[in-house]
Amino acid sequence: MNFSMSQRLTAEFLGTFWLTFGGCGSAVLAAAFPQLGIGFAGVALAFGLTVLTMVYAVGPISGGHFNPAVTVGLWAGDRITANYVLPYIIVQVAGAIAAAAVLYVVASGHPEFKLGGFASNGYGALSPGHYSLLACLVIEALLTFFFLLIIHGATSAAAPAGFAGIAIGFTLTLIHLISIPVTNTSVNPARSTGPALFAGGEYISQLWLFWAAPIAGALLAGIVSRVLYKPAA
Amino acid sequence: MNFSMSQRLTAEFLGTFWLTFGGCGSAVLAAAFPQLGIGFAGVALAFGLTVLTMVYAVGPISGGHFNPAVTVGLWAGDRITANYVLPYIIVQVAGAIAAAAVLYVVASGHPEFKLGGFASNGYGALSPGHYSLLACLVIEALLTFFFLLIIHGATSAAAPAGFAGIAIGFTLTLIHLISIPVTNTSVNPARSTGPALFAGGEYISQLWLFWAAPIAGALLAGIVSRVLYKPAA
Amino acid sequence: MNFSMSQRLTAEFLGTFWLTFGGCGSAVLAAAFPQLGIGFAGVALAFGLTVLTMVYAVGPISGGHFNPAVTVGLWAGDRITANYVLPYIIVQVAGAIAAAAVLYVVASGHPEFKLGGFASNGYGALSPGHYSLLACLVIEALLTFFFLLIIHGATSAAAPAGFAGIAIGFTLTLIHLISIPVTNTSVNPARSTGPALFAGGEYISQLWLFWAAPIAGALLAGIVSRVLYKPAA
Amino acid sequence: MNFSMSQRLTAEFLGTFWLTFGGCGSAVLAAAFPQLGIGFAGVALAFGLTVLTMVYAVGPISGGHFNPAVTVGLWAGDRITANYVLPYIIVQVAGAIAAAAVLYVVASGHPEFKLGGFASNGYGALSPGHYSLLACLVIEALLTFFFLLIIHGATSAAAPAGFAGIAIGFTLTLIHLISIPVTNTSVNPARSTGPALFAGGEYISQLWLFWAAPIAGALLAGIVSRVLYKPAA
Repeated sequence: MNFSMSQRLTAEFLGTFWLTFGGCGSAVLAAAFPQLGIGFAGVALAFGLTVLTMVYAVGPISGGHFNPAVTVGLWAGDRITANYVLPYIIVQVAGAIAAAAVLYVVASGHPEFKLGGFASNGYGALSPGHYSLLACLVIEALLTFFFLLIIHGATSAAAPAGFAGIAIGFTLTLIHLISIPVTNTSVNPARSTGPALFAGGEYISQLWLFWAAPIAGALLAGIVSRVLYKPAA
Repeated sequence: MNFSMSQRLTAEFLGTFWLTFGGCGSAVLAAAFPQLGIGFAGVALAFGLTVLTMVYAVGPISGGHFNPAVTVGLWAGDRITANYVLPYIIVQVAGAIAAAAVLYVVASGHPEFKLGGFASNGYGALSPGHYSLLACLVIEALLTFFFLLIIHGATSAAAPAGFAGIAIGFTLTLIHLISIPVTNTSVNPARSTGPALFAGGEYISQLWLFWAAPIAGALLAGIVSRVLYKPAA
Repeated sequence: MNFSMSQRLTAEFLGTFWLTFGGCGSAVLAAAFPQLGIGFAGVALAFGLTVLTMVYAVGPISGGHFNPAVTVGLWAGDRITANYVLPYIIVQVAGAIAAAAVLYVVASGHPEFKLGGFASNGYGALSPGHYSLLACLVIEALLTFFFLLIIHGATSAAAPAGFAGIAIGFTLTLIHLISIPVTNTSVNPARSTGPALFAGGEYISQLWLFWAAPIAGALLAGIVSRVLYKPAA
Repeated sequence: MNFSMSQRLTAEFLGTFWLTFGGCGSAVLAAAFPQLGIGFAGVALAFGLTVLTMVYAVGPISGGHFNPAVTVGLWAGDRITANYVLPYIIVQVAGAIAAAAVLYVVASGHPEFKLGGFASNGYGALSPGHYSLLACLVIEALLTFFFLLIIHGATSAAAPAGFAGIAIGFTLTLIHLISIPVTNTSVNPARSTGPALFAGGEYISQLWLFWAAPIAGALLAGIVSRVLYKPAA
């Protein structure tokens, strides 16, 4: 089936809104609720389910990227043409900022609301476990590399049809189960940008890492995928 | 395959009973059990699994709504005809009330049973985290909007067949992971009505929000879906 | 494909062993581990995954019952013939007892091992939350009714092929999320019998409920399913 | 589709890297984070999701073993020819060691990093719950037996196509839900070898059990599978 560019961009906007609102929302609103809070495991599940659900909802329209690193990686892997890259990234970032804004409205309805990090990503002093810059760079690049590798594989011709949403969504859950203590987990520059604009200060000056490392990992995965997933003649 | 109206209404009654008994039951009976309780994350999983399981069980019979907002949203999205709307909503509310009654029988078998909020939804003083009316209105409408958007997408002609139950059930899990602290999570006027009738008092006078906000979000999603999911000629 | 009776009975033995060892094992070994224990939610997930995994492993051989109530319910629903009922129940109970024996060997390797309830089911004083006999009877019959309803639906001709294992396994997870505090959750007379033989005393004299209530619920579900899932001519 | 031996070995290297980095990484970095840590249940989910995701990503290339016991078991079950066994095991172990090395780089970026057991497996004094050698032997052999049984079943001709990744991945989650307190859960000699080389000392001298017991269980499962999954003529 064939969808127009405006349908595709709407799908990417809504999907990235959902990823950022759902994932960061679960972290801000529910992770540390006294006694009954969902913890890092609940946040990990939430992030993954935003992608799982939206891949089934709008994947057939836009491909279901919701993430500039995914868009760049799929271009490097020769799965999409260059003309989609910039428009997709623009609406993804817009969706993430809109999500952070609406989340701010909801979260500030709490009688003792404090902004804090607002689920932003960070390294060093802003890392949840105060991990070093090197550790944060390595893990963001590595996890995005595997994220894109799995995306390429699960959507390749050899993979069973229909299961990609489950595989890709649960990859994001897994990535969060590993790395929330390190960087608060990005692997997605749009998701990093939205909350950081509200948290401000140092969170904004650290944003470069959450663009550079995921995109570097994604580019490498795209190139590897060109060779790995090519069946022998 | 073709099922009669009485089969469809039985399916909707049973499905909404299961959603309300399973979701609210996990909250009332198991969430706060000393040391080993399932917390908000367990309740979120339970709500989602009520829908996932019943979509596979009776989805082919009735469509698997179990929720007046879903029924109204699918009508707005031109997926069902108007004659189903009122009968479906009536049996959904009846199923939720019956579930709350049976849950009352079980829960009151605890030697130190206290009714409390009985898993009812609420805003302001009755919100688990005491969130403002505005925050509660926004999040209920927004989450139901996305719930219906995903339902329309995952059941559209372009989506892979068979996976809708997984996508839709896990959307409800995700919605709870985000918003239990805010409103105790409704997005479903029938689920809100059942327990509120037992909790009584203020819980009943706040019910209007959990009918108005989900249905508003669902109507908007239905209209958006008419455009978003229409392939170009 | 066609499998022999001895292959079928081996499959049911192994499946019920796995259900009892995995579910009760997670409860005995891992639920209450200091700080990091999996709690009731982890046990609920474990029970469900025993069924999900074994349905995909041996479902095509035996139908994947692993539970006398399921076997009786499917006979009442006209899905299997009477000659399978008794042999299936015998190997299911044997598998559960064998599982409890091996679990005893493992658990007693802990330096401070105490037998306790050994994950047995119970009501009144032996209910984890000390729920009354009535509450325990109601919830076991009700949850098994819905369990069998979903099994009939998810394996009906109208349901999407292949997804039954996910729907049925996650139903068992859901049932545990609701009811571990009430009866420690049975809905399966074989799973109840294995550990009770080791826990002994009162646990054995309460076993009748965990045979009677699940089978009553299953019988009713089988009868309802004959009508509910029959498409109009 | 047909893939070259170098593509297959790359897939097994990457898959076992992912299993070890993701599973052990979640344990080392996130399990015991103050208040919000993911606990054993989160680690169990992480291990399972490494396999679920990689089976969809590279399963069509290499078969998706990521585990010497799986490779040996599938050879015993007549699913692969002998020439794959040694090369697969070599790259699996190499992948696990590489994963442990990168995990060391990340984990040591924590300001108060202590190596500890580094998610290694152990029995007796090195078992998380100090379980005896016998208990550890029994549970590793038994759980690997069932792991391989389910792998054979879920990939047999009678099983529904496409679902094997879900069944097999969630089996590994289930296995961890049961047995982390006993051995820290191996069922995979490569996963055991990587971290042990970094933890050193006693962890290395206990490695024999985590090669012997899983491979014994896997061999038996392969032999049983030859009979169990063979349809009657």
